[in-house]
Amino acid sequence: MEDNLDEFLEFGLDIAKHAGEIMRKYFNENNGSSYKFDNTIVTSADLEINHYLIKRVKETYPDHSVYGEEESLAKSYKEWICDPVDGTAMYARQIPVAVFSLSYCVNGIPLVGIIYDPFTENMYTAVKHKGAFKNGERIHVSEDDFDNMKTIVNIDCWPTADYDILPVINEIQDKTYLVAIGSVIHAGALVADGKFDAAIFPGTVNKNVDMPAVKIIVEEAGGMVTNFIGENDRYDEPKINGAIISNKVLYPKLLNLVEKYAKDRTIEI
Amino acid sequence: MEDNLDEFLEFGLDIAKHAGEIMRKYFNENNGSSYKFDNTIVTSADLEINHYLIKRVKETYPDHSVYGEEESLAKSYKEWICDPVDGTAMYARQIPVAVFSLSYCVNGIPLVGIIYDPFTENMYTAVKHKGAFKNGERIHVSEDDFDNMKTIVNIDCWPTADYDILPVINEIQDKTYLVAIGSVIHAGALVADGKFDAAIFPGTVNKNVDMPAVKIIVEEAGGMVTNFIGENDRYDEPKINGAIISNKVLYPKLLNLVEKYAKDRTIEI
Repeated sequence: MEDNLDEFLEFGLDIAKHAGEIMRKYFNENNGSSYKFDNTIVTSADLEINHYLIKRVKETYPDHSVYGEEESLAKSYKEWICDPVDGTAMYARQIPVAVFSLSYCVNGIPLVGIIYDPFTENMYTAVKHKGAFKNGERIHVSEDDFDNMKTIVNIDCWPTADYDILPVINEIQDKTYLVAIGSVIHAGALVADGKFDAAIFPGTVNKNVDMPAVKIIVEEAGGMVTNFIGENDRYDEPKINGAIISNKVLYPKLLNLVEKYAKDRTIEI
Repeated sequence: MEDNLDEFLEFGLDIAKHAGEIMRKYFNENNGSSYKFDNTIVTSADLEINHYLIKRVKETYPDHSVYGEEESLAKSYKEWICDPVDGTAMYARQIPVAVFSLSYCVNGIPLVGIIYDPFTENMYTAVKHKGAFKNGERIHVSEDDFDNMKTIVNIDCWPTADYDILPVINEIQDKTYLVAIGSVIHAGALVADGKFDAAIFPGTVNKNVDMPAVKIIVEEAGGMVTNFIGENDRYDEPKINGAIISNKVLYPKLLNLVEKYAKDRTIEI
């Protein structure tokens, strides 16, 4: 284990606070949103945050690299993986649920994770083996089972997703309130904080940036994050194999349903 | 047509601003949330806003009545219908998407509608035959068809809903981004503003309070709001028959799908 993870957390917190200022700055404006090749939206905030992160990492840790959703630095095994604005479609429509996310990874495994909600100013953090926190207070996943109608599960669903998770929704819709708030990273932070109970994310190509901060924060809060076949993905490669983000009670049930029902829509992903 | 609708709008705006203050006041606190008989959450904000509305209506329009989600005044044909905090489950979890909603109705038909988002401070309003507005600027529904992958449709899904809308989701999931932000009234305001393209709401018993402000604001913005069989519901009775909230391009397609596929889960609703 590296011994300077706390220093990396402090560095990341500084980036996150600045990213939050950028997100708030553009939020109420016509924020210059445009569409990427896959029809997802990119905004001025995405680009400015990503660019700022690269500048700061170059200055402070010149032997590290950056894997940003919008822009990257040459790869090394020590890497900062960032989704500057997760929930961009909501952000561009002035719905305040988008978050910033940053993780320090070694060989694609997250050792430090930060998620910042600039609208409620909630800062979620974790360092490997040191627990998960919201604004400095320990957080824990829920212990609720489906029997409790108070559970909330976030399930994302979009046209180009490689998995069809409708059969999973069909199995659980009578057992839990279902939402899709438009940011899987925000949903992940809420799972860590016990406010949501689980999230299912059918993302694959280029969705690696969504998961490392969620993975370490949720697991340090006592939960589980794996791909759709129960394995840990590396997050320094562009493809992940879906994600189950859950408290420990629901995790085995969701994994079982996803393995049984989620249909791969592609020949080769 | 009554000639004092503009006065009622001004009265409603005053209530809405005060309601927004109450919502913001409790948002960051442990907000005293508890569960109603149907396991939906009610918070201190719901109760305080509903109580305030009744007090104000009694003082100003003693011959009017109030139909509140939490509390009502004796019925007359002139009625203020209110959902104090729509999206309470999100609100109680500190996710800033909940809204306040109020409508002045005659015989259950909305003539004035107000939706207030206290987090972005967007105020959506409409008076019959006078157009729909956000913060005083005219708003219009989108003109997008499903062919455009940029469309967003909000679909709510909860365990005690009387309709199964999964077959509808199955038909449209490859044609549009789907979300469920946790407040149908907020989703309705976003349809009126052209930011979402449609919303499907499988609500029935006690869900009448959700629709009158949405109905008049979306229709004055050029859209359509009907129940699941294409009819106008009265909103002064506790039961509605689902709701399709849409721009005019998607409306006939959604109605067709809902009529064909939405399964009634109960014998008698």
